[in-house]
Amino acid sequence: MSRTTIPELLPDDACGTDCPGRHEHAPVSGSSSEDTIAAIATAPGSAAIGIVRLAGPGCAAILSAVFRPLSPSFSGFSPFRLHHGELLDVSGRPLDDVLAVFMPGPGTFCGQDMAELHCHGSPAVLAEALTACCAHGARPAEPGEFSKRAFLAGRLDLSQAEAVAELAAAPTADAARLAREKLSGALSTAVSALRERLADLRARACLAIDFPDEDVECLPPGEFRAEALAVKDELASLAANFARGRLAREGALAVLAGPVNAGKSSLMNALLGRERAIVSDAPGTTRDYLEEPLSLDGLLVRLVDTAGLRETEDHVELVGVRKSRELLQRADLVLLVVDGSRPLGAAEVALCREVPRERLLACVNKADLSPCADDPLPRLTESGVLAVRVAASTGLGLDELSRSARERLLAALPPDEGRPAPNLRQQRCLTRAAAELDELVRAVDQGLPYDLLGLHLEHACDALDEITGRLTAEDVLNRVFADFCIGK
Amino acid sequence: MSRTTIPELLPDDACGTDCPGRHEHAPVSGSSSEDTIAAIATAPGSAAIGIVRLAGPGCAAILSAVFRPLSPSFSGFSPFRLHHGELLDVSGRPLDDVLAVFMPGPGTFCGQDMAELHCHGSPAVLAEALTACCAHGARPAEPGEFSKRAFLAGRLDLSQAEAVAELAAAPTADAARLAREKLSGALSTAVSALRERLADLRARACLAIDFPDEDVECLPPGEFRAEALAVKDELASLAANFARGRLAREGALAVLAGPVNAGKSSLMNALLGRERAIVSDAPGTTRDYLEEPLSLDGLLVRLVDTAGLRETEDHVELVGVRKSRELLQRADLVLLVVDGSRPLGAAEVALCREVPRERLLACVNKADLSPCADDPLPRLTESGVLAVRVAASTGLGLDELSRSARERLLAALPPDEGRPAPNLRQQRCLTRAAAELDELVRAVDQGLPYDLLGLHLEHACDALDEITGRLTAEDVLNRVFADFCIGK
Repeated sequence: MSRTTIPELLPDDACGTDCPGRHEHAPVSGSSSEDTIAAIATAPGSAAIGIVRLAGPGCAAILSAVFRPLSPSFSGFSPFRLHHGELLDVSGRPLDDVLAVFMPGPGTFCGQDMAELHCHGSPAVLAEALTACCAHGARPAEPGEFSKRAFLAGRLDLSQAEAVAELAAAPTADAARLAREKLSGALSTAVSALRERLADLRARACLAIDFPDEDVECLPPGEFRAEALAVKDELASLAANFARGRLAREGALAVLAGPVNAGKSSLMNALLGRERAIVSDAPGTTRDYLEEPLSLDGLLVRLVDTAGLRETEDHVELVGVRKSRELLQRADLVLLVVDGSRPLGAAEVALCREVPRERLLACVNKADLSPCADDPLPRLTESGVLAVRVAASTGLGLDELSRSARERLLAALPPDEGRPAPNLRQQRCLTRAAAELDELVRAVDQGLPYDLLGLHLEHACDALDEITGRLTAEDVLNRVFADFCIGK
Repeated sequence: MSRTTIPELLPDDACGTDCPGRHEHAPVSGSSSEDTIAAIATAPGSAAIGIVRLAGPGCAAILSAVFRPLSPSFSGFSPFRLHHGELLDVSGRPLDDVLAVFMPGPGTFCGQDMAELHCHGSPAVLAEALTACCAHGARPAEPGEFSKRAFLAGRLDLSQAEAVAELAAAPTADAARLAREKLSGALSTAVSALRERLADLRARACLAIDFPDEDVECLPPGEFRAEALAVKDELASLAANFARGRLAREGALAVLAGPVNAGKSSLMNALLGRERAIVSDAPGTTRDYLEEPLSLDGLLVRLVDTAGLRETEDHVELVGVRKSRELLQRADLVLLVVDGSRPLGAAEVALCREVPRERLLACVNKADLSPCADDPLPRLTESGVLAVRVAASTGLGLDELSRSARERLLAALPPDEGRPAPNLRQQRCLTRAAAELDELVRAVDQGLPYDLLGLHLEHACDALDEITGRLTAEDVLNRVFADFCIGK
């Protein structure tokens, strides 16, 4: 697989307009690339360093207006070099001691002139710096606008631009690695290769349409069918790898379920006390149940205690509350907590019937107490439920529980063959393309004419072109970039 | 006043070891400057860009271990220039596309070799980048350790190093400007000039001690006294300007007080709805009362509603709760909210007696309701309380209230003569020095011998040397830098 790393910035080799990532794209309206945009590019909050980032034709003029070099030997900006000086506020007063860098286009992330001001990381200083830049002709950047410009300038294709946002938001090292692979073009390369095979198939179908009476070069229906199926299988495998990316990006949803006094909350605390979470919170979600992130040997898990749900007085079932039910259905793994010192109840048995075995892991708790004559563990195991004996109070069995949970979650993924992991939008495009090929195969089987077959191939190619942005409607583009953070 | 800007980094003119900020200092133990330290220097959270910062002799070696340049034309790091490449994780796998910069000492912030890795701003990527650096010989930096090295290398004096932390934490543009002035040496320059005058005085006192019988050059007691008093006044003025810095850094504490149904909460909401706050929260504080930041034309105010306090059933006084009382005593401004449609109550009158007039502003609320025969406003005004008529429900009078509150808060500050604003530590040193000079003047008046006078001068000089760090005990230094954030 050829590898085309498309960098954020290309200080060393300005590849200009003929870099490998260059492509055709649908025109995108909205704000003009002739505007100079500015944004705070570092996370909000007090810190040692904060960055204001600029892109557009006005960068040089704005730098000379807001930045006063402090070195007597300064003789203009040297490209990609940090210069020390004073940042001036709107009224020209010194506001901060900063480093400034000017990066001339086209060898930059956005493909046009860019600049950065490295300030002391005070939100007030950064806000004033942004205001000063805007007073001299910049305007605040929209979410994702830097990446959108990189896309429009042909520096990144759409899947690579999306990878930039995925990288910045990566909650785990695994998520970062998958995003980086995509940024380097792994998904684009794989998708483009499959698209080529479909285009080839289509060309040969067209040949048959254009010259119906000549038999030259026309692929026999059997070979046609086989090739379409082969590409479809590849697309399906790629689409299936969405699960790997989702697991790395969002973590697995593990739900603790079980009767009231089985020890769900104690088990949650025991697990959280042992395994330090990678991220403190998933962004942008509100919950009315207790959710905590934890890391199972690098695997991000969002652990939910259903005990946090408001329990109704009269619910008869274990999972009677609608919210619990929804959680159990969405869960990647259900941890059924049962009290090992008591016989298995009807509610637990009902839950075992409801949740598929491969998403179920029973935790037979209170192993430190005297055992029950009717031990739940063998009953669970006999009915095919994977069960581990634990004691939340002493920590007994927690290692085995963590290991089993991790194995169970990873077993649900497709085999790791080094394939890139599409995001949801990309997975949907892949699935659409695969569905078109399914239709195509059915059409071949029904002996339908080649011009109908050609249409399915065209639609499949279009779906793949949406992944790379080679063919993407304006509203799709706008939706993609609106999900980015500002400054990216 | 001479101005010595001491930059974070000096890419253009490496001033090396003989830069003007250089000074003697007490030896500081703890971690050696020969260690290479590393820290995430940007705020935590997902963002476009995040920076890992390094300082120490191992920077070049660590960069070559964790960074793989992507340009074929790369031939080693060019000082202060951004280079594009791959960041490798602990096991040597590519983790991120980054920009790296190498900054050779001594012309850097820390006075030694430094480096930065500009990554995509994912907390996971930054954590892995830090881990990779540490695997190749760096160790995680302690809070303030970069600035401490700058101090130890003589790149900054102590008050300048403190200004770095103040700049990064500045919640308002005013706070940033005051901190920046201090970073540029304004306080050091002022303090050093006064110290020179004291040293001069001391030299002349010593002359009198060493040659008691010769009358040469010995300052007459009257002149000696006058000069000591003059310096003392300067020190007191500088110390008084602490209030200006505190107001800019921490904001003013404005407390809403008044009877239960006067409309404190509505007034708070009305003010908050009109004036957008600069900062969303003050860091590191926990409260059991409702505190919200708001900006009165750039002046940061922390508005506290005492109604948030748990009110005891049987309290007779308006400010019966101990917590309320403490708040009222600490408040820079008490906003007494009274119901304009009812006569003034005994509790309100009691509060007016308790709070000094210059810290009191009465808000006669419910101006939209039919007026009361016994209107509280003239009664308040007659007794010297500044009062404004407002209606929280309609917004009437809120502009005047904001203006009056702002004026009242600014009137409490010493006159703005462009003096630098010391922080609490610096203010205490200034006050100590001033107190020594007070003692000195008393001693002169009592006709005490010159050797006793010399001792007071010595102590005053020592106190001033603590501000610049020329003479600072190790534990003081450690305390100063422990308050910094990591990466600074």
